[in-house]
Amino acid sequence: MLAAHYAGNRTMTVDEADPAPPGPGEVQIAVAYNGICGTDLHILAGHMDARVDVPAVIGHEMSGTVAALGDGVEGWAVGDPVTVMPLAWDGTCPACLAGNSHICQNLDFVGIDSPGALQRRWNVDAGLLVPLPATLSLQHAALVEPTAVAVHDVRRAELEPGQKAVVIGGGPIGVLIAAVARSFGADVVVVELDPKRRSQVADLGFTALDPRDDTVAAVEDWTGGAGADVVFEVSGAAAAVLGAVDYAKVRGTLVVVAIHPEPRPINLQRVFWRELRLLGARVYQRQDFDTAVALLDAGEIPADALITKVMPLAEVQAAFDALTGGEAMKILIDVQAGEQSEAA
Amino acid sequence: MLAAHYAGNRTMTVDEADPAPPGPGEVQIAVAYNGICGTDLHILAGHMDARVDVPAVIGHEMSGTVAALGDGVEGWAVGDPVTVMPLAWDGTCPACLAGNSHICQNLDFVGIDSPGALQRRWNVDAGLLVPLPATLSLQHAALVEPTAVAVHDVRRAELEPGQKAVVIGGGPIGVLIAAVARSFGADVVVVELDPKRRSQVADLGFTALDPRDDTVAAVEDWTGGAGADVVFEVSGAAAAVLGAVDYAKVRGTLVVVAIHPEPRPINLQRVFWRELRLLGARVYQRQDFDTAVALLDAGEIPADALITKVMPLAEVQAAFDALTGGEAMKILIDVQAGEQSEAA
Repeated sequence: MLAAHYAGNRTMTVDEADPAPPGPGEVQIAVAYNGICGTDLHILAGHMDARVDVPAVIGHEMSGTVAALGDGVEGWAVGDPVTVMPLAWDGTCPACLAGNSHICQNLDFVGIDSPGALQRRWNVDAGLLVPLPATLSLQHAALVEPTAVAVHDVRRAELEPGQKAVVIGGGPIGVLIAAVARSFGADVVVVELDPKRRSQVADLGFTALDPRDDTVAAVEDWTGGAGADVVFEVSGAAAAVLGAVDYAKVRGTLVVVAIHPEPRPINLQRVFWRELRLLGARVYQRQDFDTAVALLDAGEIPADALITKVMPLAEVQAAFDALTGGEAMKILIDVQAGEQSEAA
Repeated sequence: MLAAHYAGNRTMTVDEADPAPPGPGEVQIAVAYNGICGTDLHILAGHMDARVDVPAVIGHEMSGTVAALGDGVEGWAVGDPVTVMPLAWDGTCPACLAGNSHICQNLDFVGIDSPGALQRRWNVDAGLLVPLPATLSLQHAALVEPTAVAVHDVRRAELEPGQKAVVIGGGPIGVLIAAVARSFGADVVVVELDPKRRSQVADLGFTALDPRDDTVAAVEDWTGGAGADVVFEVSGAAAAVLGAVDYAKVRGTLVVVAIHPEPRPINLQRVFWRELRLLGARVYQRQDFDTAVALLDAGEIPADALITKVMPLAEVQAAFDALTGGEAMKILIDVQAGEQSEAA
């Protein structure tokens, strides 16, 4: 079978590998699609070399079908459409014991810390499988994982119907958060620097603001002088973090979604003055996955608008390079493409 | 009567003034004691000149007795012991309408934005009065206001009995937060740089850590590898803000109590990784005042240890200078001292 590897030095290779049979308690998945995520781009850029052992099969936004069952696996049948919640926790650390296993202090993020989905046959622990409805296409289902991130962010913010939210950053996660927030009944404004992305956001029915305009005044106007109930910082930019608190109402919430590798200056005077709440939000819990599947199945997520392109596994390097260059919103890798002809 | 004024240029003056009769709805208070607060030191240093019109009678941590009633005031009698919750809100801004009148968007902080308690007769709106039990000394009662700050901080953190808290900064507010947290049933560690203050903190029965030691490892040990439930940042130091997140457990809370005039670098990677919650906490609500009165009356607050000195109104400049120089924890001004001899 073919498998893509991060080989270090900004390089993805595509290699022939022998598929292993699923071990006890494991399911073998025929991976259909794998979306490339911002974290994968960080891996390619070498930012996570301390954590990733090369050569590494990465990939964790996926859909597929059950191909084989290991010993002792029950409740699944060959052909079942599935996705994977890629978190393996130890169950014994203080965070797990307090009920926060999704942020286990020794978390194994499958596809980063252990082998991922950019391979034609992927063995995972059966406990990680999430069933998909037959009505959901496998391409759209590859968006379940990033949609679950957005659901977790919105749920963590305790956003309520009728509230007003500002999303800073109109990339894939920003758009997903905006869509999930809208599906929860909130009004949403997206702040995005790039004119092309701003136009895409507007096409999805959201108000899109240019951060070079007086966006604080615009949010003040929009909220009758109160400020936004929730602000999602998804851009990762230092300037955005500094300005984010100015959008929030008294006792408003700022959710830090983006990765900020360096400490960022924050206006704590404003945090104090308005009694703001700043929340970290990381990955998801099982209920977020279930909600994400339901939202995608109900057509609440603009999946087609988000998926810029579908490319075969053989072109994985080109796909990564296109995303690194900002040429696409989301690219799916068609992991099975060409399998029939190769087998023939 | 005598009144102390902030006159600009790092100067407090003591001047003769004619006491005005209380207006309709007002109560005239014979001020007994007024504690000098960190905010008052900021005023003296000129940091708040844009907000304070000189000459200004400042002071907002006080106790006294009712001296006269204005027209229409009911429920109070001359001689009643009282303190004042020094917040006047407009009741019409979005924050007030949402139930957060203590952080009214047009808040008048009495003693900063309007005349304060460093005068022998002080007229305030009767609605701001808080009754004191006869069993509480007027010296201890001058600590009600800063104790209410501490109660608000602890309540905002949702600290629960049996939880573990780290207080960064062992000044008056840090010690009050530690004492309130202990009275709520929490275990408390205080991190303080100054050896003298550290020793005072230890004398009050708290574990006192030197921030130059490996305090993160100490907190890890103390909490069985989990981290603290709540961290209170009371020091105002940039380095403390940067390190504060390292004390907190997964989903732990960091309360920003100190004033940070400049944006401070925060490790958002840690906030994200552990899904931390960072909360601004400002002043207090009425229930915090009531709780503060009850805690002081019950002897739960180390009032005598906090009150370094009581000085007469005539020596107000020396009192401010002693606090600015770090020579004292808390100094009370005896506002009536000398009145009898002057009147004779």
